[in-house]
Amino acid sequence: MTTLFYRLGGLSSRAYSASATLRSSRPIASKSGGSLKTPSLAIPSRSFSSAKGLRRTRPPIPRRVHAGVVAAGSLLVAASLFGGHAAHDESPNVTESKHYIRLNEVKKHGKDSERKWVTKGVRVFDVTDWIAAHPGGPVILQAVGGAIDKYWDIFSIHKKQDVYDVLEEYFIGEIDPRDLVDGKLSEDKVEDPFVSDPSRDPRLQQHTAKPCNAETPSSCLGDFITPTEIFYVRNHLWVPQVDEETHVLNVELPDGTEKQYTLSDLKSRFKPFSVTATLQCTGNRRKHMSDNAKAATGLQWEAGAISNTEWTGVRLTDLLEDAGFPVNDWNFDEAKHVHFIGSEAYAGSIPIAKAVDPQGDVILAYEMGGKPLSRDHGYPLRALVPGHTAARSVKWLEKIVLAEDECQSAWQQRDYKCFGPNQTPKDVDYASAPAIQEMPIQSAITALKSISSTSDKGRAELQRLGLEEDAIKVEGYAYSGGGRRIIRVDISADDGQSWSQAAILPDQALGHKSWSWKRWESVIPKRLAGKSFVVKAVDDSYNNQPESYGAQYNFRGNLVNAWHRVRYGDEERAEDVDVGERHVRSTK
Amino acid sequence: MTTLFYRLGGLSSRAYSASATLRSSRPIASKSGGSLKTPSLAIPSRSFSSAKGLRRTRPPIPRRVHAGVVAAGSLLVAASLFGGHAAHDESPNVTESKHYIRLNEVKKHGKDSERKWVTKGVRVFDVTDWIAAHPGGPVILQAVGGAIDKYWDIFSIHKKQDVYDVLEEYFIGEIDPRDLVDGKLSEDKVEDPFVSDPSRDPRLQQHTAKPCNAETPSSCLGDFITPTEIFYVRNHLWVPQVDEETHVLNVELPDGTEKQYTLSDLKSRFKPFSVTATLQCTGNRRKHMSDNAKAATGLQWEAGAISNTEWTGVRLTDLLEDAGFPVNDWNFDEAKHVHFIGSEAYAGSIPIAKAVDPQGDVILAYEMGGKPLSRDHGYPLRALVPGHTAARSVKWLEKIVLAEDECQSAWQQRDYKCFGPNQTPKDVDYASAPAIQEMPIQSAITALKSISSTSDKGRAELQRLGLEEDAIKVEGYAYSGGGRRIIRVDISADDGQSWSQAAILPDQALGHKSWSWKRWESVIPKRLAGKSFVVKAVDDSYNNQPESYGAQYNFRGNLVNAWHRVRYGDEERAEDVDVGERHVRSTK
Repeated sequence: MTTLFYRLGGLSSRAYSASATLRSSRPIASKSGGSLKTPSLAIPSRSFSSAKGLRRTRPPIPRRVHAGVVAAGSLLVAASLFGGHAAHDESPNVTESKHYIRLNEVKKHGKDSERKWVTKGVRVFDVTDWIAAHPGGPVILQAVGGAIDKYWDIFSIHKKQDVYDVLEEYFIGEIDPRDLVDGKLSEDKVEDPFVSDPSRDPRLQQHTAKPCNAETPSSCLGDFITPTEIFYVRNHLWVPQVDEETHVLNVELPDGTEKQYTLSDLKSRFKPFSVTATLQCTGNRRKHMSDNAKAATGLQWEAGAISNTEWTGVRLTDLLEDAGFPVNDWNFDEAKHVHFIGSEAYAGSIPIAKAVDPQGDVILAYEMGGKPLSRDHGYPLRALVPGHTAARSVKWLEKIVLAEDECQSAWQQRDYKCFGPNQTPKDVDYASAPAIQEMPIQSAITALKSISSTSDKGRAELQRLGLEEDAIKVEGYAYSGGGRRIIRVDISADDGQSWSQAAILPDQALGHKSWSWKRWESVIPKRLAGKSFVVKAVDDSYNNQPESYGAQYNFRGNLVNAWHRVRYGDEERAEDVDVGERHVRSTK
Repeated sequence: MTTLFYRLGGLSSRAYSASATLRSSRPIASKSGGSLKTPSLAIPSRSFSSAKGLRRTRPPIPRRVHAGVVAAGSLLVAASLFGGHAAHDESPNVTESKHYIRLNEVKKHGKDSERKWVTKGVRVFDVTDWIAAHPGGPVILQAVGGAIDKYWDIFSIHKKQDVYDVLEEYFIGEIDPRDLVDGKLSEDKVEDPFVSDPSRDPRLQQHTAKPCNAETPSSCLGDFITPTEIFYVRNHLWVPQVDEETHVLNVELPDGTEKQYTLSDLKSRFKPFSVTATLQCTGNRRKHMSDNAKAATGLQWEAGAISNTEWTGVRLTDLLEDAGFPVNDWNFDEAKHVHFIGSEAYAGSIPIAKAVDPQGDVILAYEMGGKPLSRDHGYPLRALVPGHTAARSVKWLEKIVLAEDECQSAWQQRDYKCFGPNQTPKDVDYASAPAIQEMPIQSAITALKSISSTSDKGRAELQRLGLEEDAIKVEGYAYSGGGRRIIRVDISADDGQSWSQAAILPDQALGHKSWSWKRWESVIPKRLAGKSFVVKAVDDSYNNQPESYGAQYNFRGNLVNAWHRVRYGDEERAEDVDVGERHVRSTK
């Protein structure tokens, strides 16, 4: 079961997959088992979206849905986890005869319609009665009134017989041949889920366009504050279209009470709080691991899946207090985790200890870099959890839930974990490792600049530095999670044989702890430069970076922080540009 | 100056040395300078013991003392830092003629006498007027009424001309020849500062006897709770004789107000709080670094300068609140550090953020392992700072001071810091690294046990484990600072080429975070055993241990946490003892 789910590709398809192995790696219901195992045993007492109805009065699961569930195994469980349940007992409008439906008729059955239809290929389905049981939750509404094909390309977990069987139950007819070209729906009739994504700065180094995943190029990593337009983008799905005027944040407390806040409430009723914080993707530097140890699955980020800026918003503690949660006297047993749920489907949670820590500085941000959040970064509202992996700083935030259990999304239960160098997706017990929260010590080289006496500019720079020979200026960043301050950056020009200390550059950062990266630089005489430059940093808990990629290898390539080595070959040596900057390439 | 102080040997002599280089590595007053530099500029606004008098009304420094100070350089500054000042202007009873004094007369001039004398060799000094200016503070009272020689052996910083010159000013006569043997004071007349130290369990592996520094042998590191009698001992000085009935804890707030608590107060007026916590010496595993990289100065601890037990006492937050400090609404500017001062002279401080953290679990412990503290471990009261280096869990606690500045003792400013692999005591700026507080991820192998089918016991054990071949059971501990939980322990039987995961053993620990080590074990078929076993662990911030000792080398050999390798040679291979335990030797 674990293998099956892991093998299913697609960037975000694992949203569904975690559910089957929530608490163990054993399947909860299996084909061979035949009968349905008591589903309530497999469902955690606290659901992902924590719907009150689910917890208190679970409606009977209709037999028809059961059939699909027994086949699909995880789907019902997942459905329950995502807060849905089969709400109706009536049969869908299944028809055996050829029944043609015009496309404009399909369009009328969108999310505001009473009956909701989708097309797949040339076939039409009325999925109204399935929606509440849909494992992915209400995200299915994004597709209704149109073709589901492209969504299934994103959520590729759908592409298996079990799911086809479920869909088949809701078949109502075929698209009228008059709306087809060569027997197929023409490409322009299939809505692109990413059609409303914003345009991006061409300098961003894009790994995938749909969803957008793009890193800040090394040439743009030189400043303490990263300009918003080149702040790295990590989207799991499309960018939802959220209207600031109508957007509502829902806060659900452990006792089930809920409170709503508009953006206007958040801005007017709470004192704004600003914090300067680095966000780093869990997969930053994954490519370095793939290149130097063994291929790791996922986006092949170099060292630019990290950026830093000033965020402004409402302190989570202030909001929770306003919503009626006693932040200074909380009950460990009832609220151990704070879930953040985004508008597009993404979700994650953080431990309550971080959420209520008066020095934890968790905010619900509506501004970055002094301006409203950009759409790619969560407009109009996102969680901002300083010191933790960016995966917990949920964008397009629409719901906060205080719960006893951790978020059950795959992004919490599967994708963002690390295992041992020997462990493989085939044998791993996902529950054996905790969800990544605080990040370990990290550093990277972002630029090598030649300072040469062959030009006036170079000579002036050498004079300013008090140097009488050509030199290389090495620049980069260092960062540690949990608010741990960078206290030392060691640089080697001879592949780790000898070291010197880089100058850590001064900066001004807001917040109770060290939530921001440190920029550093080191000027090294050119004659001392060997085949590569290496950096390693130390934080104020005196944590060190591991030396090599091999021993920290993990199949997902998460939290890669082995010493960063950058080649300095004959090619670079030959170029005597004045204060010239080179694109940083990591050594293989 | 930095070099000078570093080079002065003696285990604890550096208590004095930090003072000269408190804020920079430059000397504050020098011989060549001739005149005394304005001392107030060199003295931090907040003194180590924070005596109110010092801060507010500094008495004029008598000219005679000046002379010594100009010569001694650091001593006056140090004196001020330790809260003393030259209190009297009268000249000491200096005499140029031979004036003989009987030993029983010297004895009468002890700490309860009005005039306080010491002997050095055969000479007698009335140090009454120096006491208040003594850089080491009132610890000098330990020696008065007797010979100072053995104390100077401990505090070897005294052994230089500057200090001899100061002492000379207080010369009053020589010991009467009738009290000498062969012109010298007989050994039995020189009091041993350690005379009242307790006896220790012979199983402890002693590195030095006076002061006692002894590690828990690997054979005793097998239990989650370390029995008190074999809990490792790290004493910087002698064990002070403290009477629980009369001992008083003094708490000084930023505004200078003080409040006293007897042991009885602490036990009766506050709710006892228990926490299970590991204490680890900053120098644990130093020998591994010395053996594998380069000699590191200090006690050559193997892997046993670490132990774990349950501690009970008063929560520091409760005490501070009672003393009038607003723990939930504190002022960053006035109280940034909490100083702990021991009865013997030792002192250190922790950041206020840790002290007031409701989940920080800092206590003033009066019990360990369910019984009153043993004398070696701080009887009757010690600080217990979970997650931090044991150096901040000050024993024989007699004073707590809330101050703007960090503790200025050498144990805070010098001894417990790490520098880069290239940095040496000659060139290092001590102020450039923070005092060690939270510890990094650590693990060690404590036992290799052979499970062989050549004996009934071995066969039974193999059967229990479901193994059909001889095996090696590897056991050890893993620990991380800051309350970070151990989430994975990787074991290699082939020197790090391949890995498997050890079983982390269950335990029951008290406290808000993971303050205790984890015990782990791993059973590996004997045929897979190479030349050494290796362990590395991961904490819940996914911090990794560094691979080698070389790149984390620091001249003090602090926080050594490179992968622990234990040799498994032909010798061990040949022995087929049944479930036999071997003493663990690290590889060189």
